[in-house]
Order: sequence, then C-alpha cells, then structure tokens
Amino acid sequence: MQTLGQHARQASRALACASTEVKNKALLAMATEIRAAAETLKLENARDLDAGKAKGLEAALLDRLTLTDDRLESMAVGLEQIAALPDPVGEVSDMTYRPSGIQLGRMRVPLGVVGIIYESRPNVTADAAALCLKSGNATILRGGSEAIHSNQAIAACIRRGLEQAGLPDTAVQVVQTTDRAAVGQLITMPEYVDVIVPRGGKGLIERISQEARVPVIKHLDGICHVYIDRDADLAMAEDIAVNAKCHRYGVCNAMETLLVHSDVAEQILPRLAVRYADEQVELRGCSRTRAILADINAATDDDWDTEYLAPILSIKVVDGLDAAMEHIHRHSSGHTESIVTENYQRARRFLAEVDSSSVMVNASTRFADGFEYGLGAEIGISTDKIHARGPVGLEGLTSQKWIVLGSGQIRK
Amino acid sequence: MQTLGQHARQASRALACASTEVKNKALLAMATEIRAAAETLKLENARDLDAGKAKGLEAALLDRLTLTDDRLESMAVGLEQIAALPDPVGEVSDMTYRPSGIQLGRMRVPLGVVGIIYESRPNVTADAAALCLKSGNATILRGGSEAIHSNQAIAACIRRGLEQAGLPDTAVQVVQTTDRAAVGQLITMPEYVDVIVPRGGKGLIERISQEARVPVIKHLDGICHVYIDRDADLAMAEDIAVNAKCHRYGVCNAMETLLVHSDVAEQILPRLAVRYADEQVELRGCSRTRAILADINAATDDDWDTEYLAPILSIKVVDGLDAAMEHIHRHSSGHTESIVTENYQRARRFLAEVDSSSVMVNASTRFADGFEYGLGAEIGISTDKIHARGPVGLEGLTSQKWIVLGSGQIRK
Repeated sequence: MQTLGQHARQASRALACASTEVKNKALLAMATEIRAAAETLKLENARDLDAGKAKGLEAALLDRLTLTDDRLESMAVGLEQIAALPDPVGEVSDMTYRPSGIQLGRMRVPLGVVGIIYESRPNVTADAAALCLKSGNATILRGGSEAIHSNQAIAACIRRGLEQAGLPDTAVQVVQTTDRAAVGQLITMPEYVDVIVPRGGKGLIERISQEARVPVIKHLDGICHVYIDRDADLAMAEDIAVNAKCHRYGVCNAMETLLVHSDVAEQILPRLAVRYADEQVELRGCSRTRAILADINAATDDDWDTEYLAPILSIKVVDGLDAAMEHIHRHSSGHTESIVTENYQRARRFLAEVDSSSVMVNASTRFADGFEYGLGAEIGISTDKIHARGPVGLEGLTSQKWIVLGSGQIRK
Repeated sequence: MQTLGQHARQASRALACASTEVKNKALLAMATEIRAAAETLKLENARDLDAGKAKGLEAALLDRLTLTDDRLESMAVGLEQIAALPDPVGEVSDMTYRPSGIQLGRMRVPLGVVGIIYESRPNVTADAAALCLKSGNATILRGGSEAIHSNQAIAACIRRGLEQAGLPDTAVQVVQTTDRAAVGQLITMPEYVDVIVPRGGKGLIERISQEARVPVIKHLDGICHVYIDRDADLAMAEDIAVNAKCHRYGVCNAMETLLVHSDVAEQILPRLAVRYADEQVELRGCSRTRAILADINAATDDDWDTEYLAPILSIKVVDGLDAAMEHIHRHSSGHTESIVTENYQRARRFLAEVDSSSVMVNASTRFADGFEYGLGAEIGISTDKIHARGPVGLEGLTSQKWIVLGSGQIRK
C-alpha cells in the first residue's frame, strides 16, 4: 500500500498539470476501451458471479454485481459525459487589487490523491476514476472482494485509456489484494492520500470514519423529513409527500418521516393514507396520527431515528413550525428536509434555521442529487459541514489556493 | 466537558439564527466591558504573571502573557473591527433555475461549535470568540494554564457583552480547568464540536492533529520559499528577498529558503549578502552558493526542512524552474512560495504547479496574511487542502448548504 501511495502521489503531480484536452482524451479512450472489451468484461464478471453464487450472496447483491451490455454501455456513456463537463482545475475567481497593490485571487486546484472504498457495484470503478481524473486527482480504488475480477478488468481498460493520452498509468490504481488490512492502511496514510470517499453500507462507512487519519467525505444516513405546514397547498403537499416517499425506496434522499401540522392533519392524512395504500407503503404513526388513521401501527421511539430504505413511513402530527424544526433537529441525519407551505415567513425561517445539507421549500426531497443539481455526476453525498456539503461533484474534489500577482510589492 | 459541549451545541442554534444587529451589539458591548474592566483585567493578569515568574517562565513567554493598557485597547478595537465586518451568515449565491423548475442555490451557514485551543496570549480569548460569534458559531475556548486568570477575566467581559445583547452566555465558554485531559476530551467530541482550531507551537498542534476525532484547521510549519528566476528584475528580487526574510523573523510567512537561478547567482548573491549582513542574518548555503559566497556556513540536509523563525536563511542555487519547483515540492510546508520573474510562461507555470496555500509572483511572502488579504482578521492559517486553505477568516468558519425553492416540483 505504501508503494501504491507513493506512485499515486507522483502521478498526482502530473495530473495536476495535465491539460483539459489530455484528460478528456483519456476519458474518451477509456469509453472506447470499455466498449471494445465488453466480452472480456462480461467473462471476468461471470467469474465474480459464479464465486458469489457459490458463496451464497443474496440476490440483490448479485444483481448489483452483474455487468450487462446495458450497464457497460452506461459506463461508457458516463465517461463521455464526464469528458463533456467543464474542467474545474485552474479556474480563477475573485481577483481583486488590495490597497498594497498586490492582485489577489483564488485558483481551483486538485486535492491530490483520492482514495475510494466501495462495495459490490463494479461501475463505481469507472465513475469514480473518471471524476477524479477530470478534477486532476490521482485515485486509489479499493472495491469489494466479490467484484475483484470485474474491477481488475475495468481497471485494465482505464489503464489503456490513460496510456493513449500519455498519462501515467499510476494515475488510477486498483488495489489488487482483497485483504481487509489494505483498507486500514489506505485510510491512515495522510502523506499519500488527501481524502477518502467511502461508498457503501453504513457499517463500512462507520468503520472508516472511526479509523481514518485522512479526511473522509461521507454520509451515514439519509433520514429526510417533509413538513406539511398549516398554510400548505394541500394538493401540492400530497404529491410531494407521495413522491418523496415512493419515487424510489432504497435511496438516501427518500423521505422517512412525515411531519404534519395539527390544523391540517384531519384533512390531509386520510387522503394520504389512500395514496400510500395504493403504493403499499406501511404507515407508523404517533398517537395523534392514529387518532385520525385508526388502523395503522404505532411508531416507536426507534422509528424516528430509522432510515427504512423501504416502503415504510413514520408520521407525526406537530403543533407548528417550531415543533417540526425541533423534531428535525433531534432526529434528522442532516441530509435533506423540505417544508410545504405558502407562508413567506415560515418558508424563510425553515430555509435559514434547518441545519441540513439540502433545505427545500415546496419540492420533493428526491431532488437532492448531483444530476438534478447540475453537477453532472456525483462522487458521493456529504452530510458533514467541513469542505463539501450535500451532493459532491467535481468541485468537491478540488480546493482553492490563493494566488498573488505583484509587481515587486514588499510589506511596509 | 460533556456538559460544556451540550451547552455549546444548544447555544449554537440560537447563534445561527441571531441577527447581524444582535451579534454586533454583543461585540460592541464586549469592547465597552473590556475598556471598563481594564483595572480588574490587569490585576488578574498580574496574578498570572506572578505565578509565571515563580514558575520561571522565560521572558518571551511572560511578554506574550502581559496585558498592558495598549494591548487591552487593541483588544477592544479588534472587537469593534469584527463588528464592522460584513456578516457572512445567510449569504445566498449561485441561485439558478434547473430544467426541473426548481430554483437552486447555496446559503452560507455557521459550522456550529468551534473549539479553540491556544497557548499563552490572552488576547486570543477575545479575538477568537469575536470571530466565531460574528460567523454565528458557539465557541469553547481552552487557553494555556499560565493565562488562566487573565482568560477568565476576559471571559467575564465577554459574558456580560452577550447578556446585554440577549444572547445565551453559553455562546462563548472558557474551560475553567487547566487539566490537560480536558483538551483530549474537547477534540474527541464530534457530537458537540464541529471543528478545532489550535493556535500555538508545533508540539501542541501535532498532538492535537494526531488525537483529534474532529476536523482540525491548522498549519504545522511555515517553510516558505522565494525563487529568483533567470529573468528576474534583480533590484526587485533583492528587495523581495530581503523583505520576505527580514520584515519579521518569528512569523510563519517569513522566507526560510532562497532559491536562485544559476545564471544570475553570481550577480545577485554578493549584493544580497551585503544586505543580509546589514540585517545580521546568518546565511547557510549549498556548495554552489558557497562557491560565490565563500565565507558562509554550509547548509546541511536538515536546513532545507527547518523553519528557523530567526535571522537565519538557507540558500540554494538551482538550474531552472523545474529544479526550483522540485525543491519546493520536497521541502515546502505548503504555506507560501513566491517566484521573482519577468517571464510570462514561467510565472504562469509556477502559479499553476506549486501546491501551496498561497502562490505568488513578484511579491513578498509576508503578504500571506488575513489582514493583507482583506479578510479583516484571521482565526488561523491552514496548510491543509480540505475546507479552508491559507489565511482563515469568517468565511472559513462557515459552510454552504444547498437551498431549493420550488413550486410543487416532484421527481419524474
């Protein structure tokens, strides 16, 4: 791992100076290589799938692991899309003259070396490598052991793409070993790795956050809330509450708890109950909710802190904005919250006072996403407050240094 | 410490919503309180000084510890200056409509709770508390044991200022104990503390970085370089090289190593040697430097990695920009580097390729400073790449969350 780290650090210097043209050339060459190697990729993937079946991996995991022609094509298209994004590196902003006569500004630069630790989806290998490359960073990728052959085959395509563009093939390195100790080393080498992005289940991310000696861009949970205010447009509220829960269940920006103002609960809850029944969503309510919806289960204390990632929703009736924000403050994971209201002052307060990475008025929480935000692609979502917050795209893989243009100025 | 942390977390919610007017009122009231309490502050300070003398503290430390009328007045003026700075909280930027119809932007918000760990200067108590307050953060201050009475007396003024503005007095808390274990606790409570800013010697900062479980804004060393290129204006180069070394010695943005292109070394080094002799700066050179300046000491390998903070300078003759940047890459602490050149392409390469928090052309490294950069004041300097880089002012104590304004949008 030390050698890998040294190579990455060296490669990062070449990448930081690589032109946009060269980086795009590498990305497009990788896409071509992946299309050309489709048969090999599927064969290598089959080795992983066979091993996975023999090990008794569950069906959902095997599905995520599978590379089909469609998935290979989206991988290639993804690389082309990242090539088409603007290059953030070298962007200069805020240039101003200071009273001393120096001209001061900020230049966007790569972070250096990014370590990506992920689980079974082999497409992350190409996505993550491409985002890091475009933002001028070297990458060390450590995928799950169950995808080792697929990942190595994708890595070979990436290496050929790098070579065709004249970039060092150590710009993207895939850890060869499936030894778990390798992760422990990767996250404790601040001299070679500038940031770690873990992608996977909560267990993996918790372990990495606990043990890392390198900054980690991460989110643990997505316990997102929608609050239906007294002054909500109830038809709009209904649509948002259904979309936020039911558009997709297994995603971090899905709503897990619905908060409803007591003045409108009797009107809207029965209507919502019908919609959720259509979608086969299980409802769990507080006592005031169950006074209206008699036949639903009671929510326990644990429900308010649970990310279901499933067709289950907890509902609480509250007496106003302050009670709603207090509940959010105590139970939110800081990912995304939305208020539905036509009231100007309460919309403004919710935006200012709710401390989450995305705060919304009259929109579904499902919009908290790199593509929807126009970042082009995302390397992950951060619920931390330092550095990047919310969906993290190319910009989150860079930092800004100060630049000073002088004409001989000295301090008086 | 747990209780302190809980109080800070609670107070941070009130502070995040406090208006600019209220925060400024508190800052101005603190300034008034400090002026009014001058005699008490000096008496409490005398207790620390007596204890320090009894303990045999060295003169420089006692000097830093001393509160004079002048220093108290600058403390009060500093508070007034921070009140006059623009409030970063709530600033909304980049509002744009997305194809889905949502309007997306970013809102600047406080980090939450900032922990400051510092050594003997009691003025940090007021400065740091004021910067954190203005940026909407609660603060936990942990000063050196040798300044405990001074810090507590300043804290009392701060508390009275907070009360007059109607803010919770737990918005700024000074740790009462001088027990070292308190630091260990403060830096391992991510649930109550969002970021740690250590201010003090390298030993303190290294220990904190090693042990912290909370993000740390820090710099360890300031090993800054000036490179005099072949195409430098030599008169300008001479002034910059003298200013960068001699303007002040004990500061992190002073030059510690001078790199000189071999084509101009014979011309400029003898002239510089005269100037440095006037300033009583000891020179230590590489063999090629000593071939020109025969009577100076040889630089050892350690010299290139040493922050002298003293009238000592190491000098190396190099064969061009690449050699200069290679030396910087190996030995710089990532703080500040400057090139002196009239060559367009080399200036551009130096700006793009040198990976330090401030990179300059034709200016003294001494400009790398919060006041010179117009930040108003600085809480510290960061040589890390994540979050804030270089001088850290109010903006570095905030983050940006995403805000979404919709009119009922749902994901298709």
